[in-house]
Amino acid sequence: MAVYTEVSDDELSTFVERFSIGALLSYKGIAEGVENSNYIIQTEQGPFILTLYEKRVNEADLPFFLNLLEHLSEREITCPVPLKDDKGQALGTLAGRPAAIFTFLSGMWPRKIKPVHCGELGRALAELHVAGRDFPMKRANDLGVMDWRGLLNQCLEHADDVQVGLGEKLSAELDYLEPRWPIGLPKGIIHADAFPDNVFFRGEKCSGLIDFYFACHDIFAYDLAICMNAWCFEKDGDFNVTKARLLLSNYRKVRDFSTEEVDALPMVARGAATRFLLTRLYDWVNTPKDALVKPKDPMEYFKILKFHQSVRSAAEYGLQ
Amino acid sequence: MAVYTEVSDDELSTFVERFSIGALLSYKGIAEGVENSNYIIQTEQGPFILTLYEKRVNEADLPFFLNLLEHLSEREITCPVPLKDDKGQALGTLAGRPAAIFTFLSGMWPRKIKPVHCGELGRALAELHVAGRDFPMKRANDLGVMDWRGLLNQCLEHADDVQVGLGEKLSAELDYLEPRWPIGLPKGIIHADAFPDNVFFRGEKCSGLIDFYFACHDIFAYDLAICMNAWCFEKDGDFNVTKARLLLSNYRKVRDFSTEEVDALPMVARGAATRFLLTRLYDWVNTPKDALVKPKDPMEYFKILKFHQSVRSAAEYGLQ
Repeated sequence: MAVYTEVSDDELSTFVERFSIGALLSYKGIAEGVENSNYIIQTEQGPFILTLYEKRVNEADLPFFLNLLEHLSEREITCPVPLKDDKGQALGTLAGRPAAIFTFLSGMWPRKIKPVHCGELGRALAELHVAGRDFPMKRANDLGVMDWRGLLNQCLEHADDVQVGLGEKLSAELDYLEPRWPIGLPKGIIHADAFPDNVFFRGEKCSGLIDFYFACHDIFAYDLAICMNAWCFEKDGDFNVTKARLLLSNYRKVRDFSTEEVDALPMVARGAATRFLLTRLYDWVNTPKDALVKPKDPMEYFKILKFHQSVRSAAEYGLQ
Repeated sequence: MAVYTEVSDDELSTFVERFSIGALLSYKGIAEGVENSNYIIQTEQGPFILTLYEKRVNEADLPFFLNLLEHLSEREITCPVPLKDDKGQALGTLAGRPAAIFTFLSGMWPRKIKPVHCGELGRALAELHVAGRDFPMKRANDLGVMDWRGLLNQCLEHADDVQVGLGEKLSAELDYLEPRWPIGLPKGIIHADAFPDNVFFRGEKCSGLIDFYFACHDIFAYDLAICMNAWCFEKDGDFNVTKARLLLSNYRKVRDFSTEEVDALPMVARGAATRFLLTRLYDWVNTPKDALVKPKDPMEYFKILKFHQSVRSAAEYGLQ
């Protein structure tokens, strides 16, 4: 479950009064999510989302995230928009935590990924990249290529409990990636976590993106690679080139890739796989058995990494 | 968290179509609750609650619960009302589980109990007892006085790990209660689980009761005793007679007690404390450490039991 901080009814009623959304009628903690505590609140004006920021989110980053959502929504990207209180502030304090109220985004994340979802995602991701271009704030990717070695070192002792030889293989992968990681590719605001549960659909149409708390300034191709890894592999680990082709071809209808981006894609995809493999491994070896959130299987990403290691050119992703 | 069964977007959309509530816009699992999986669903007509019945609820009891809610709501008791599908059925199947959709009840359960809440509860509980009188279905209390010994026997081995001597004390309490348990007191439909998180308020007014999955046919005084135990003791275990007086006096404005009920109240309150002490003890010794739901402290109810053991007459509860 995702509710780490309990909010009292009196406190929340007082908090909600500062926003012009009518009286609070109800609030319920949402079971999904990992990083923060989220509640659906119903007021006289309908449903909203209340987020309490937990310790995993750096408070200093919150203005970046909230301003980014506002910026994107002004550019017709459908995403949760933080409300402003009677003093014009989006960020408040509730139950001792930074907190904000957001517009409610309708739509459902797809439990079973169809190719049409990947096509829609490609378009939405490119639109996000374009809309973020003139966003003035910067946030470095704190899970970028130069952070992976440190992550690995924190798991090395237990990595081989997950699979014999895993630590050594990851170490070799970093030896490969670090000196070769592409520089100079087109950069801008990326979502960096556009997994299926963060992308909403109504029917077959994408109705918006949520959960921008990994958003940062990094190369666009990396965001695309994260999506390819999260959306275009089947549960058995097989790569679905039909899905990838739709993701990439719909993306480039909105923002075309340079030749350099295409050439770098296999390398960037290895990096994207390594990043999620490492954070999952870290969570796997560091999560107590009685934690509220079950860690995800890191080995799913090991299979994805192995696939990309065998790729010789981006043509294998369905790019023409 | 309370979501044990994952529902897919496609499956749920199809399920919702059978009810005339517009298209499904969103659904999110609710973190609260223990017995069943609950989702807030938003449709074109607003919010509703979807419940998937998990194994702890006996499927054969579901018609009783659903019909009871309908019966009560027709008698102006505010509670969730099951919707009927296009074939007139409230109960369907979703993700392999019995499932139903309910009207959304606004209001919030009080995190900090004030005396005024107890007064409101007294009135609401009496109204429920009166409204249930002509409900034709019956359901025996499967956690009644004659079921407690069996529960205790299942925990005896580990009871003393919780507190030395606890098993023996509980055994002695059952020796006391079983032969003395009052018979012939006024009976009818009782809620049997009207804890604060099952009673909603808007401001200081009770806006409804939820979670009727322990409702059964038993003595009214037992329901009142459950409420007194759950609402009128402070966190440190102290009995708050102001709260109890309001609970009882507001109750009797709607349904007056007989002299027999008043005289039996200390005994019934011991029984009500014993019932929750035993089920909490059972959960405490049987819940695996990595369970989704943390068990509640049984010893909170041991303090309550000890208080009632020292009571000589119902006057100590504030009854005049």
